[in-house]
Order: sequence, then structure tokens, then C-alpha cells
Amino acid sequence: MEEKTIAVLTSGGDAPGMNAAIRAVVRAGIFKGFRVLGVRRGYNGLIKGDLVEMNLRSVSGIIHRGGTVLYTARSPEFNTEAGMQKAIQVCRAHNILGVVVIGGDGSFRGARDLSERGYNCVGIPGTIDNDIACSDYTIGFDTAMNTAMEAVDRLRDTSQSHDRCSVVEVMGRRAGWLALRCGIAVGATSILVPEAPFDLQKDVIDRMVENQRAGKQHFVVVVAEGVGNVSEIAKEIQTRTGIESRATVLGHIQRGGSPTVTDRVVASQMGYHAVELLSKGIGNRVVAMKADKVVDYNISEALQMKKPFDFNLYQIAHDISI
Amino acid sequence: MEEKTIAVLTSGGDAPGMNAAIRAVVRAGIFKGFRVLGVRRGYNGLIKGDLVEMNLRSVSGIIHRGGTVLYTARSPEFNTEAGMQKAIQVCRAHNILGVVVIGGDGSFRGARDLSERGYNCVGIPGTIDNDIACSDYTIGFDTAMNTAMEAVDRLRDTSQSHDRCSVVEVMGRRAGWLALRCGIAVGATSILVPEAPFDLQKDVIDRMVENQRAGKQHFVVVVAEGVGNVSEIAKEIQTRTGIESRATVLGHIQRGGSPTVTDRVVASQMGYHAVELLSKGIGNRVVAMKADKVVDYNISEALQMKKPFDFNLYQIAHDISI
Amino acid sequence: MEEKTIAVLTSGGDAPGMNAAIRAVVRAGIFKGFRVLGVRRGYNGLIKGDLVEMNLRSVSGIIHRGGTVLYTARSPEFNTEAGMQKAIQVCRAHNILGVVVIGGDGSFRGARDLSERGYNCVGIPGTIDNDIACSDYTIGFDTAMNTAMEAVDRLRDTSQSHDRCSVVEVMGRRAGWLALRCGIAVGATSILVPEAPFDLQKDVIDRMVENQRAGKQHFVVVVAEGVGNVSEIAKEIQTRTGIESRATVLGHIQRGGSPTVTDRVVASQMGYHAVELLSKGIGNRVVAMKADKVVDYNISEALQMKKPFDFNLYQIAHDISI
Amino acid sequence: MEEKTIAVLTSGGDAPGMNAAIRAVVRAGIFKGFRVLGVRRGYNGLIKGDLVEMNLRSVSGIIHRGGTVLYTARSPEFNTEAGMQKAIQVCRAHNILGVVVIGGDGSFRGARDLSERGYNCVGIPGTIDNDIACSDYTIGFDTAMNTAMEAVDRLRDTSQSHDRCSVVEVMGRRAGWLALRCGIAVGATSILVPEAPFDLQKDVIDRMVENQRAGKQHFVVVVAEGVGNVSEIAKEIQTRTGIESRATVLGHIQRGGSPTVTDRVVASQMGYHAVELLSKGIGNRVVAMKADKVVDYNISEALQMKKPFDFNLYQIAHDISI
Repeated sequence: MEEKTIAVLTSGGDAPGMNAAIRAVVRAGIFKGFRVLGVRRGYNGLIKGDLVEMNLRSVSGIIHRGGTVLYTARSPEFNTEAGMQKAIQVCRAHNILGVVVIGGDGSFRGARDLSERGYNCVGIPGTIDNDIACSDYTIGFDTAMNTAMEAVDRLRDTSQSHDRCSVVEVMGRRAGWLALRCGIAVGATSILVPEAPFDLQKDVIDRMVENQRAGKQHFVVVVAEGVGNVSEIAKEIQTRTGIESRATVLGHIQRGGSPTVTDRVVASQMGYHAVELLSKGIGNRVVAMKADKVVDYNISEALQMKKPFDFNLYQIAHDISI
Repeated sequence: MEEKTIAVLTSGGDAPGMNAAIRAVVRAGIFKGFRVLGVRRGYNGLIKGDLVEMNLRSVSGIIHRGGTVLYTARSPEFNTEAGMQKAIQVCRAHNILGVVVIGGDGSFRGARDLSERGYNCVGIPGTIDNDIACSDYTIGFDTAMNTAMEAVDRLRDTSQSHDRCSVVEVMGRRAGWLALRCGIAVGATSILVPEAPFDLQKDVIDRMVENQRAGKQHFVVVVAEGVGNVSEIAKEIQTRTGIESRATVLGHIQRGGSPTVTDRVVASQMGYHAVELLSKGIGNRVVAMKADKVVDYNISEALQMKKPFDFNLYQIAHDISI
Repeated sequence: MEEKTIAVLTSGGDAPGMNAAIRAVVRAGIFKGFRVLGVRRGYNGLIKGDLVEMNLRSVSGIIHRGGTVLYTARSPEFNTEAGMQKAIQVCRAHNILGVVVIGGDGSFRGARDLSERGYNCVGIPGTIDNDIACSDYTIGFDTAMNTAMEAVDRLRDTSQSHDRCSVVEVMGRRAGWLALRCGIAVGATSILVPEAPFDLQKDVIDRMVENQRAGKQHFVVVVAEGVGNVSEIAKEIQTRTGIESRATVLGHIQRGGSPTVTDRVVASQMGYHAVELLSKGIGNRVVAMKADKVVDYNISEALQMKKPFDFNLYQIAHDISI
Repeated sequence: MEEKTIAVLTSGGDAPGMNAAIRAVVRAGIFKGFRVLGVRRGYNGLIKGDLVEMNLRSVSGIIHRGGTVLYTARSPEFNTEAGMQKAIQVCRAHNILGVVVIGGDGSFRGARDLSERGYNCVGIPGTIDNDIACSDYTIGFDTAMNTAMEAVDRLRDTSQSHDRCSVVEVMGRRAGWLALRCGIAVGATSILVPEAPFDLQKDVIDRMVENQRAGKQHFVVVVAEGVGNVSEIAKEIQTRTGIESRATVLGHIQRGGSPTVTDRVVASQMGYHAVELLSKGIGNRVVAMKADKVVDYNISEALQMKKPFDFNLYQIAHDISI
């Protein structure tokens, strides 16, 4: 008799907590009687048959590590019908019933397409930007925010010693979630995000000047990546306020590091839930957090959802920063 | 014309994030036109009139600091009518309309009693144990969990080098929330909490032996404070399994440290919400997080709520740890 | 033609940085044309022939990890002539010319005995206590100190909030190096070490009272493990001063964690130096740091050296803590 | 009778540990019977008379904080005779016998000039670059190295997940100390410093290709600030090797953060030593670490010293990274 087999892969940009999710998929899978295969380097590995047998020990000692032990990549080939067919042959050859795909929206499209061709896929949202509409939370977000916050806490020490303004770019090309929460956490004078239009004079300069009158002499401005060039913003601030201003781009350090409790726990919950779905023969779903509960959605529907920016929290940030 | 005045105090055990809450109360208060007084050392300060004027600068540079700049204490005197009356005289003398009380259930009872005597109080849940029934989340919990997790990650290094079992006591006299999430995050073989009865042989020893057969040679057992003596548990494990076992009590290090993003942000939201209530003339409420939203409850009702332990998550922890 | 082979093992208590030393031995060994074997679980592995081939990749991704990938153990059997002879047979069978032994004094005695029987051994001091006489520095010391310091920094937050005294036990059964430097770093009111006799009344109580008069209301007392029971010391302090006092035993968390720069760099230097010695046919040596330079000593001579406690630094600690 | 007074200031770029040095100066000063004044914002504060009385409590709770509570600045005015004379008048007016100057070479020149005019100054080397010739160690270096290392450890996680090369710029415009030790600590394939000429093809590209053949698929190249533009280096590496390469500039985060044990202890030792000199009527000296001992030098002689780069360690780094 053939063994029931499921596979797990990570795709797109990596995020801290992906290993915890892989571990949960493998252990929950084995617990439920599956054979579990790890696919290396995302959908490329599925196309090439770069698979590795996973057992309890192969996920031992990984829950606390950043990155992904299965590696990750983007796969343009998988978006072609030819690539998809190669992947299907690999699935068939290894008797794979279902695949857990940890990644972002692009990865979920692949999961949907494969599900529609008879191979049940379940997506798990893993991206530090928290920009997946169907889920309140995405794996990696908490770690990335804390990494960014600790870095800005360091910048504040030196800004304060020198009476300077730090203008810091944090990750988020189309989403200001990380900037918003990180900005509140570091007590930023202003937070600039792609979702909210802003006026440099009114929303940054005037606030700095007002704070300066109240005795404040060092400043932090947190800027989401998608908003624009922080060097230019810093230069403009210095010109208009006379306060020495320095730009810092935090960059890829926000992608790494040992995951926080939240990322490890949510990843474990989501990995477990994904396997439960597959064990019931259910595919074409994305696992999500909604009001602190683990739920799941049809992938196509999930991809069409919108996640409104938290303007209420943005307002609080505004009101308590002056 | 007299200035509208509110006060803020921290009471009971301290928790990381209390400073962020104080800061939000002061800044939101000033933003809404209040004069804000800080009360030192909890209700004792209210009885003695140990008050300090708070302005924007007095809460500058505190959001990232552990502990509480207002100090904290338990106040048996406040539980007497005489103590209460002294506090009321101080409130009257300083024209205090309302008080924000950051603490736990004991502190909220005081806030209710004072509210009932005409001084609006709003409670904010601050305790690392997450054991306040009305709120999904209490300030300090996330930081404490991460501190505990990092400590156990260190213990694992040395357990692994020596093929040992680490039996770790984390905080939680009556509540296993911290143990549960921390235990999942470190990949503990077993998690012992006061809410769930356990059998040492079946739930710890047998699991270790089973894991050992699968090749595992080092183990972590996470135990909530309220469950019992970890030295005895470690001794018993060593006797029954033959695996060298060491006990560690993490203790008060879990109370300190710079707060995480979550603790700083939630504290900011709750502090802001508390001031909004007072500014509308509403008292006798506890601010709470419910399904990721900031809400508030009548204090008496809040004190009678029950918070069921997350047995579902406990089961996941069980299933993926072998 | 037979390949020249060296081996590397870790022995005794583990210490952060041991992996960096293993890595340096393997890479420097390969660089110099050796085949390198890893011995698992100290001298026990040498007796049992538990050897593993090491290549560039087998030490990839370990420099930043705590613990030791080769595991460690104490080996009473190696202290017997029979055990020693078994180890010699394993060395002969695998054509091992020399062994790098990372550990403490006990491990070096084994290295000396093996060297005297014709198998060149070089010791590398690895222990968090810094209690190896011939070397100013031992691998793991810097990481352990920083771990202890961060933990006490957390304790200070909560001590300060509650006007308490924290009495903290740090590692060091016979040596107060860690307590001394950690105590200075946290601004401890008193530091108690096994090397310096003390009078609780004069050296702790009176100093606290004097500080209290100057306005200080929270205190930290750092105690080396070898000095005595911190719970009793805390109780005594509380009785005599009336200041609430709490004891914390930091314990094994000081053994783990990702090594600091110093531990990684010193381990790399020492591992490299050890291989250089072996490549010149020199054995029966201990590598050491002396006045910031890497040197080496005859093992027997090294074992008879004395390392005077730094009473000068102890005096500075005393003078600036009041 | 007039009280003997000394002053302390921080000058130039800030560095973690400066607060520990200020604290040691204040406490050792008071211990030896001095009145101690803090000068704010470096020599500018001395010119303007921006002085603050320091007591035991004013340096309480600062040993663990980054930055400098006295603020720092560069002071072009102090380099003019007019500025110098104003500072002298302030010293005379406040009966200041001597000044402890924490900073770099530029700050020491001011200290020498002031000493030559009758006001004893003692310099303490504080700069994260470790680029002060007379001293093996400068305050802030250890913290900055560890901050850089932790950031690169994070970058490695994501480089590894994606099979990429990380090219990281660390601080050091004219000095490669930080790059060298940080590079060894993270296991960098290549380390580029201003002191050592390099050939990109031979010292970076060829080594990467060789490592790739041995199975390595992710790389870290550490580059000191003074070497050149990391974006261009990354682009060049990608072009020549075909390995996706990303540049990161760590920037000012390396200046902040809570100091390590080493920085707190060395700062305490140096601050204490500086006061001892002043208490003996000795000025025009720089305190330094030499072969692990605290010594002092004539400032003019110190400014002419050369500190040879550690090419031996650079060679070790080279040999063990392939």
C-alpha cells in the first residue's frame, strides 16, 4: 500500500518563523500519519524534484532559527503551463497529495493553480510586511518590527547625544504596517506610510518645531520604504528646521534573526491548521489569523480581499507624539 | 478657572510597558486639555499626596524602559475606609477628576471603590501573567514571554551539548499562559500548567522516552510557577529516565527589560483609550483587548469574568512536540 | 601514502565560543593539509571511536551558535590506564597525530597524559568561569558575563520600580572573575567573591544604608556561586536593613547563547594557534592569552600556575559604588 | 575655604560606555573629595558655562545607557584663542582645577592646549572605531562590534535562505579594526579594510568561486566604511560571479545601544584612573589600555604614536575563511 504523502515549501521573500511553520507541518503531518517531503527553493524545487525526506529529527533545533532551512526563491517558470506540468509530474511521481506553501500572495496564486489541477495546496502567510489582505497577521511581522525597533532605539541614543534628527527607512514597499507600529514603539515624532498622504511641512517640520519649543532636541522620523528617499527627506528636514538630520536605511537586517514568541507560536498554529485541512482532503485554502483566531479562506477569494489600513491607530500615534 | 486634572498611577507588580502606558496617558491627557499628575508608589502615593506634575518632557525617553517611572507598591491601607478617605481628600485638594490605574485585579478593586465614591477611575491591565479575565492581553506579557524564551534558548544550547534535560520554571502562579506560549516557542517536550492536570509518568517521562527512541537526546520541560517545585520534578525525571536533568527558576528577570513592540503599542492604545473615557466623564471601567480591538468593561463585571485556558493551543503543543 | 590526521574534541562544561574554536581548528587544519576528525562527547568519544570526518562545510554556519556541535562530557574512564589505552588504540587506528582539546584544567590533564604517551595534544582554555591560571582569558567568559549583565539589568528595572534589593548569584564556584566584572558593569552596591573575605554588616549592610541616606532606594548585590546561599543572604539583608530583598540564581542560562565578538575571535585565534603547534610537531602545550597576545605553555607548568585575583579592580568597584 | 572642583565632558562622536566613564569620574571624584561639574555639549559647554552640578544620584541609573547624558558636540570655536580664553574664564569662575575629556584625538588636542594654559586635562579614549593610536582599546569599540555582528548574523539568515551574497559596510573611515574583528566573528568570506590593499578579483571573487565549488552558496563580505561604496562592490560581485548580491550600510545603529560588560568596565577603570591623575595634580595625559593594563601618556606624545594594524589577525581571518 502506498503511503499518503504531503510536501512543504517556502516561497518568495523569507521571514523569521518560516522554520517554525515547517516544523509544525512536518510534526503535525507525521502525527496524522503522513509521510512529509520538504521541497527546496520554492516552486523551483517542485519543478526539479529537489525533495528531501523530512522526519522528526530533520526539524529538530530549527524553531529558533531565522531564515528557512528549505531555502526559498521566486519561480517564473512555475507561472508557465510547462513549468506547472513538470511540477505535477513530480507530485505524481512522489505520490504527493497536497502541498503546504509558506509565502505571500504570489506564492498563493501558484497554490491555487496547482489546487485547480488536482493537487490540494494550502497557503500560510509568511512575510515581514504584514501585507496579506485576508490575514490580520503574517509570520515574520513581529520579529521584523522588533528588530526595526531595537535598531531605532540605538539610533535614538546617538541622536539624543548630538541633538539630531534620525530619519529611518523601515521595510514596506506598499504597506505601512511595520512603519506604523515601529514608529509608535519608538515614540517617533512623525510616521510616513504609503497609505496616508502627507505634507512634509505640516506633518513633519511643523511638528518638530512645535516639539522643539516644548524642549525636545532630538527627533525620530520613521518612513516606510514605499514613501520615498530618506536621504532626501533628511536633507529637506535639515534645511527647513536647521536641525542636523541623518538618514538610515535599515534594509535586510529586518528579514533575519531568531523569531519572537509570537512568530513561533502563530507559525506553529498555522502549520498545524494547514495539515488538518489537507488531512481532511481540503485544498485551495489560505490559513489566516482573524480576530485572534486561526481560520482559512478560499485562495481566490483571499486574493481579492482588501485590508484597510489602521487609520485609528495612525491617529493615536499622531496625538501622543507631540 | 480651575484646570481639569487627571492622575495616573501604577499599582501591584510592575510589568514592561507600564512606562509606555504612563506616557500615553500623559500625552493624550495634555492633548485633550487636561493637567496630568503622576502618583508615586501606587495607592500609597494617593493617600500620602506623593504627586508629581507631568508634562510632555517628563515622559520623554521612557517608552523603551522597563519598570515604571512612577514606582509601584501594594497598599493595604487603601483597602481600609480610612485610607480611602485620605486618598479622596488628596484627590479633592488637587482637583483630580479621574485616575488611570495601571495594574491587576487587586488594583482594579481599588479603582472601582474610588469610582463609586465619585472619583472616576479607569483601569488598564498591566501584568506579565496575562491573568486578567476581561482582556485577551495584559501589558508586559509579550516582553516577559520573549525574555523567558530567550533564556530557555540559552539553556537549550547547554542541554544539547551535554545530552541533558532542562526543567525550567517560568512565571505564573495561577495561570499557565506564559508557560504555554513560551513552551511552544522553545519546542518543549512537555508543558506543565496549573489549568491542566498532568501525570508525570505519562505526560513527561513516557514522552521523553519516546522522543529518545526517535533520536532526541536533550529535552526541555517548561513548568508554570504554580505547578510545583522544579528541583523535585527534575530529580524525579532523572531518577525515572536516567537522563541528567537540571532545574532552573527564571524568576524576576521576566519582570524587567525594554518592552517589545506589542507591549509598547498596546500600552499606548490602552492609555489613550483610558483618557478618552475620562474625558467623556466615564469611570469605573477597565480597558481591555478583545479580538484585537480595544474595548472597556464595567469594573465589577470585569472582575467576575472568567478567561478559559486555551486548551486547543495546549493540544497543538502536545501534538507537535513528539 | 597515509594522510596526516588531527582530531578535535570538547570536554568538561560547555562554553559559548567552543564552536568557533572547532571551526578554526578544522579550517586551519585543512588549510595546512591535515585531515581533521571530530571526536564526539569528549574523551569518551576517543575511547569509543565516536569520530566524524570534518570538512569545510561541516563547520559552516556554526560560528554563531552556543554550545558545542561535538557535544561534551566528563570521562572518568579516560583517567584510568585502561581507558587511556583504548583511546590510544583509536588514535593509532585512525592515524591521528595530534588532538586539540577544548576545555578546562581537568581536560588538560588528559591532554598531558596522552601527549606523554606519544600523541601530541594541545589544550585550548574554554570555560565561562575564566578560572584557568595560565591564560588571562578563557573562551566563553565574555558571553557569560554579558548574559549575566543583561539579566541583572532586567532585575534592576523591577528592583527600582519596587524599591527593592536584588541579590543575584552568578557563576563561579572557586573564582569571582565573572562576579567582579558583571558587578561593576551593573553598578552593584556590593560584590561578593570567594577570593575576598567579607563582612556582611560592613561590606553590604552599612554600604546600603549609606547609599540609602544619599537617596538610593534600590540595590543590586552580585554574589559569586562559591560564596554561599543567596536566599539566606537576601533574608539577612532584609532583616537588617528593612529593605525588601529578593534572591535570584541565574544558573545555566549563563552557559548558553550566541557568542560575543570577543569569544568568536579569541576562539578563532586559539584554534588557529593550536593547529600551528601540531603542524610543527609540538604537543603537550596549552594555548593562552597573555597581555593580549596568543602564547602557549607546557601543560604541566600551566597547571601549576596561579592567577592572582584582580584586587585592584575590586578596589575600584568598591570606591565607585557608593 | 574653596572647594576643589573638577569637571567632565564628552566631545566628538558619542560612543556606548561614555556614561559609564562619566559615572566613574563623578563617583571617584566625590570619593576623593572633589566637587564635580558636568559640562554639557563638549567644549561648547565649557565656553558657554553650560555646567551642571554632579552628585552620586545624578549618575545613578546611567551605566547601562548608550549615548552620553552630558551630550556631545564638536566645537570649532574652542580651536580659536578667543574660544579657549572664554573656556579658561569659565574654569576660573568655577574654580575648576582639572577637566576629564572623553573623546577622540581632536578632543585630546583641546585637552593638551588647555593643560598648557594651566588647567590640567586628562583625556579618555572614547570612540567606536578603536582608532586612537596610544591605546589598545577605546570605549565603545566592543559594543559597536557586537552590534555590527548581530546585524550581520541577521543578514546571514536571509542570505542563506536565498543563496545570496551580503556586502556589508561597517564603521571605520580610516581604520579597519571594527571590520576585521566583526568579519572574523561572522565568518566573512572576505574582509576589506583601508589598511590593506586588495584586489577585488583575487581577494573576493576568486575566493567566493572557490568556496562555491566546496558547496557554499551564501556569502558575507564585510567592508570598512573607508574602503569604498558597497553598492558598487555588490554590483561588481554579482556581475562577475552571477551570485545575487545585496549591499547594506549598517550606519549609525553601530553608535548606540546599551554598552557591553567590557565597555562598562574599561570606562569605569579609565574614569577612575583619570581622577587619580587629577588628584595628584597631574594633567596633559591620555589614559590608555596597553597589554590589558591601564596606563597614561603625555598627550602630545600620544598624538604622535602610530598603531600598526593587526596583519597577523588579518592573515588568520584569511586562512580560516575558505
